[in-house]
Amino acid sequence: MQAARLHEYTDDMSEALRIDDVDRPELERSDQVLVEVEGAGWCQTDNHIIEGMWADYAPQDLPMTLGHENAGIVAETGEEVTLVEEGDPVICHPVQTCGICRPCRLGEDMYCENSAFNGLTTDGGFAEFLQTNERAVIPLPDGIDPTEIAPHADAGITAYHAAKKAVDELNPGDACVVIGIGGLGHIGLQCLEAMSAADILAVDVKDEALELAEDLGARHTVNSAEEDLADAVADLTDDEGAQQVLDFVGADETTGAAPDIVAAGGDHHIIGYGGHIHEPCQALVDGEFSFKGTLVGQYAELQELVALVDRGDVELRTERYDLADINAVAERLEHNEIEGRAVVTPP
Amino acid sequence: MQAARLHEYTDDMSEALRIDDVDRPELERSDQVLVEVEGAGWCQTDNHIIEGMWADYAPQDLPMTLGHENAGIVAETGEEVTLVEEGDPVICHPVQTCGICRPCRLGEDMYCENSAFNGLTTDGGFAEFLQTNERAVIPLPDGIDPTEIAPHADAGITAYHAAKKAVDELNPGDACVVIGIGGLGHIGLQCLEAMSAADILAVDVKDEALELAEDLGARHTVNSAEEDLADAVADLTDDEGAQQVLDFVGADETTGAAPDIVAAGGDHHIIGYGGHIHEPCQALVDGEFSFKGTLVGQYAELQELVALVDRGDVELRTERYDLADINAVAERLEHNEIEGRAVVTPP
Amino acid sequence: MQAARLHEYTDDMSEALRIDDVDRPELERSDQVLVEVEGAGWCQTDNHIIEGMWADYAPQDLPMTLGHENAGIVAETGEEVTLVEEGDPVICHPVQTCGICRPCRLGEDMYCENSAFNGLTTDGGFAEFLQTNERAVIPLPDGIDPTEIAPHADAGITAYHAAKKAVDELNPGDACVVIGIGGLGHIGLQCLEAMSAADILAVDVKDEALELAEDLGARHTVNSAEEDLADAVADLTDDEGAQQVLDFVGADETTGAAPDIVAAGGDHHIIGYGGHIHEPCQALVDGEFSFKGTLVGQYAELQELVALVDRGDVELRTERYDLADINAVAERLEHNEIEGRAVVTPP
Amino acid sequence: MQAARLHEYTDDMSEALRIDDVDRPELERSDQVLVEVEGAGWCQTDNHIIEGMWADYAPQDLPMTLGHENAGIVAETGEEVTLVEEGDPVICHPVQTCGICRPCRLGEDMYCENSAFNGLTTDGGFAEFLQTNERAVIPLPDGIDPTEIAPHADAGITAYHAAKKAVDELNPGDACVVIGIGGLGHIGLQCLEAMSAADILAVDVKDEALELAEDLGARHTVNSAEEDLADAVADLTDDEGAQQVLDFVGADETTGAAPDIVAAGGDHHIIGYGGHIHEPCQALVDGEFSFKGTLVGQYAELQELVALVDRGDVELRTERYDLADINAVAERLEHNEIEGRAVVTPP
Repeated sequence: MQAARLHEYTDDMSEALRIDDVDRPELERSDQVLVEVEGAGWCQTDNHIIEGMWADYAPQDLPMTLGHENAGIVAETGEEVTLVEEGDPVICHPVQTCGICRPCRLGEDMYCENSAFNGLTTDGGFAEFLQTNERAVIPLPDGIDPTEIAPHADAGITAYHAAKKAVDELNPGDACVVIGIGGLGHIGLQCLEAMSAADILAVDVKDEALELAEDLGARHTVNSAEEDLADAVADLTDDEGAQQVLDFVGADETTGAAPDIVAAGGDHHIIGYGGHIHEPCQALVDGEFSFKGTLVGQYAELQELVALVDRGDVELRTERYDLADINAVAERLEHNEIEGRAVVTPP
Repeated sequence: MQAARLHEYTDDMSEALRIDDVDRPELERSDQVLVEVEGAGWCQTDNHIIEGMWADYAPQDLPMTLGHENAGIVAETGEEVTLVEEGDPVICHPVQTCGICRPCRLGEDMYCENSAFNGLTTDGGFAEFLQTNERAVIPLPDGIDPTEIAPHADAGITAYHAAKKAVDELNPGDACVVIGIGGLGHIGLQCLEAMSAADILAVDVKDEALELAEDLGARHTVNSAEEDLADAVADLTDDEGAQQVLDFVGADETTGAAPDIVAAGGDHHIIGYGGHIHEPCQALVDGEFSFKGTLVGQYAELQELVALVDRGDVELRTERYDLADINAVAERLEHNEIEGRAVVTPP
Repeated sequence: MQAARLHEYTDDMSEALRIDDVDRPELERSDQVLVEVEGAGWCQTDNHIIEGMWADYAPQDLPMTLGHENAGIVAETGEEVTLVEEGDPVICHPVQTCGICRPCRLGEDMYCENSAFNGLTTDGGFAEFLQTNERAVIPLPDGIDPTEIAPHADAGITAYHAAKKAVDELNPGDACVVIGIGGLGHIGLQCLEAMSAADILAVDVKDEALELAEDLGARHTVNSAEEDLADAVADLTDDEGAQQVLDFVGADETTGAAPDIVAAGGDHHIIGYGGHIHEPCQALVDGEFSFKGTLVGQYAELQELVALVDRGDVELRTERYDLADINAVAERLEHNEIEGRAVVTPP
Repeated sequence: MQAARLHEYTDDMSEALRIDDVDRPELERSDQVLVEVEGAGWCQTDNHIIEGMWADYAPQDLPMTLGHENAGIVAETGEEVTLVEEGDPVICHPVQTCGICRPCRLGEDMYCENSAFNGLTTDGGFAEFLQTNERAVIPLPDGIDPTEIAPHADAGITAYHAAKKAVDELNPGDACVVIGIGGLGHIGLQCLEAMSAADILAVDVKDEALELAEDLGARHTVNSAEEDLADAVADLTDDEGAQQVLDFVGADETTGAAPDIVAAGGDHHIIGYGGHIHEPCQALVDGEFSFKGTLVGQYAELQELVALVDRGDVELRTERYDLADINAVAERLEHNEIEGRAVVTPP
């Protein structure tokens, strides 16, 4: 079968992946599942992987097929699989977990001690077939197109996971700042709207992004290229700051705003990871705020996100690309030219 | 009356405060309380205030009487005070709060929008008398000596507050790292022991501190001047890291250890604030951990700490000093020469 | 001034209250507030009080002016009040709390140990003026009419409080059953919609109530006079039951449905209190569910509800009545003839 | 092999179970585990099962081997099991769960939709060998004797689970009432002591039980056969009631005490299930308290309890009996003649 594989780390997106002819995966355990890929979302993290930015954090044997946002049709199941059968449409959580280690038993399956992450530590979905397991697949409700929902497997679940943590701390009328209304941010904003009655302040440097934010329910918008973010937040919150901040950018400037924009006792969620935190400890003490890292989300959360999509609470704009054009996708994202989310559709 | 006041910021602790003869405070509101001070703890934060480190964070009109860890005997009450009466022994929460603003109504009185902080933004307890209010005083149970318990008003409550946040996330057998077994750290360790069944790993650079930690219940100790902290934590936790870290130091090196010592989903609590956080956002994302600032603690938490002291669960070693010797105390703390906690006893 | 007072407990609503000419209340403490009443909602609990059903639960000195759902204009303030001033429109939380006792300090002001409950333990708002205190009044945002919002002071906050507890346990796609779409139930349903993405199943015995529920966002409706509730819930939840049940009726039949309709680990919230719970302990053990009593809500929650009203998330239908017609209101509610909520408008 | 099986429901404990010669279980799935039983605790629930009290709640095909508190040595493993191997000592959670359904994914494995409960819905451990699965076994730390720890598999985990829920709501100095200091109660009390700094009030009708409670850390004791429980709780809590009540009896009288002994906002946990709840809804509303059912505990909680045992925080007194004497055990428990916990040791 055809698969788009990374052979070596590079900054040149025009030759990021190579389309190889490889063997179709064979199922080896009783709980494995083979999925014929209908759609595989391209993610900013794919660019980061190609650049080698994850080499220190995750074991990677190259060549490796990328693609961690996958959905498709079940093609084959291990002999003890009961959840799905051949022909079922499914979305694939990117992480295959064991169900045995203590984190799995606590429901914290993202911390599984025996996991494989499709497209990050093992072969992913930029290919005709994907090998995953029963604990990673979620059957889709009637009427949901696998190709359309594919990006929710990572972009969606990551945004949802952060939004859910924030919602736990948000009361009606509280202020919530969302920084970066891009692929993840515009999903996170919709999740916040669906699950809370907080007043959302959307922040971006592009006016079109802010218009989208307003369409999706943001009460206030700030173009931070033109207006001082701290001043804007102070104005809107009587100088108290926002109870929760979701930072989908994670640049030095956005994390640096935390002491000025987070309310006492509040949280600055780190979702994007382009930059650093540089902050005196005294600032965190004085404002008693937190920097909270956020990493994808649990399987059960992906179920909840599928429910949101099924209810019509979250919409996603996608553009479809052939597998052969995959490096064009890499380049376009690098140059910020993708509208919504790119989905690769293998043959 | 005599009061030890700060006239200007200085790094020279030998002339930090001046003993002045000032008027005894007059009660002006129906809810105010005048306390004859029996003991006022000296805190590392007093040194920081003297150095001017809080000038940017808190409004300070000099000269100002320092001292935010106070206990004593009620000398006079405003006409609508019902909680205490003249002659009652009390410990004084350092923050006088309004009870009206939304944070106060939520029980988050540390975030009071109309507060005065004795010894930080208004006159404190290095004096014969202290003016505070009904919402700041806690009557002491029989048999508790105000002079002995005074340091709990800030050192104790800060350590307790951080420990309580950690305890919410700690299950029996989980690992909890406590960095810095000094004035606050040795209280925090006792609070953790009393309220959880976590396995505590105590970290310090002094062997005597580690011996104290063992006496107080730590299961493991690491002298981080001699041993690599990350290696030690990895050994003790099967490479999983500690679910919670209480950092009573807050130096660049201790915050920098977080990615290596905090378990996935865990927290690194920032209590000490000597240094900075410098960390790539990707580290917080990859390990999904948080840096959580911690600031003193609520009035209700001070009630809980008094209960711990009354139960015999938390002990504190104190050294007593005359008000006249106050700059000697400042110097000795600066040189790390105080055993336990210094308490100033006004005449 | 005129005041509608209860002189003795009775089951005859046609002579429930008597319009008396009484003295206007005098402010006696520095934190008290006098409010000129613009609207005072009539509540099912008023009927219960008149019947003597609260005599064993709350101290009541008759004659007493009823009315615990009040809003109006500040007419006078105690000398230390800062939150409001003469002329400000306010909604009045029914409970005047002390701000000093431990429950108040924890933010649990409904459990205040020194409280007075207007219209239940002290004079209420079926009168020209109401005496309350600073900790009970909430300034209204511009554009909100005190007469319209008055019923939220008890009906609204009670429904909101229960909804908020349920929302904490509800994930997108979870099932939530709301029993009784009357005065409180239709507010609770709107709060659930605004704060969660749960699928709401509305239950009533009147079809008009179920139509209203659908208009307000319920996904499913059951007329329990015609259809078996347990069967309907089983059908809609694949036999798993509903994660949360809000019982605004509290009759023997509705509490008796709990073992059949509450999912494992779920809650049956008791808000209405017309009947009893009769259940073998084994049923609670086998299904690991809870019966949770719910009582009004905190001051901070009333702030949050005002925010929901201000956002347009919660609407309330009211009918206005003159103070002179107050017993007609009592009778009409007794006979279930009030559409929406009756608000008494003193002269 | 020999197995003690229930052939028909009976109230006559002298012929409760019959020792049959049956086939040793065969492993049929890749995740199954065969355990040679070293100890199987006898539980009050075994008496209830024999009486037919669970027939309506759980599917039971008779004859069935009872015994749900099992520990032993791994004798054989399915081909994909990695957690344990032949020869490992293990304690067996009584419920074999699937790891696939949504409750399992949330960590709520007690609500597994595809579970088998050894000794309740499938064969248990009063036999030489027990068939269970990888998700039910927990390897024991060195030095822990399987026979001694066996009763923790159900008695222990049930008490721990209830204690853990209570601990989440208990602050230092809060009052916690423990009703019934028997097999479960004395474990629950030790768990509360290890994980909180609450003041425990132990209640029983036998003075020896109360002496044991004092030895284990209870601050106060009440013999409810001699003293009025409500009065005693009122005295000890300044009429506020206890924040948490753990009712290991669950009789009509003990649940009926709830309105008088539970503090506002508190919980009455139903663990024992000998009787009923009969309560007007108004009582739950007025006191805003809950009746919370509690059912065994999760696998992860059994891991935590093993950690408590390993730390020396929880001790259990056991008496050993031969499999042949099993009906004598049933009778002795029926007559309240077992000291501590009976453990059956198959040949």
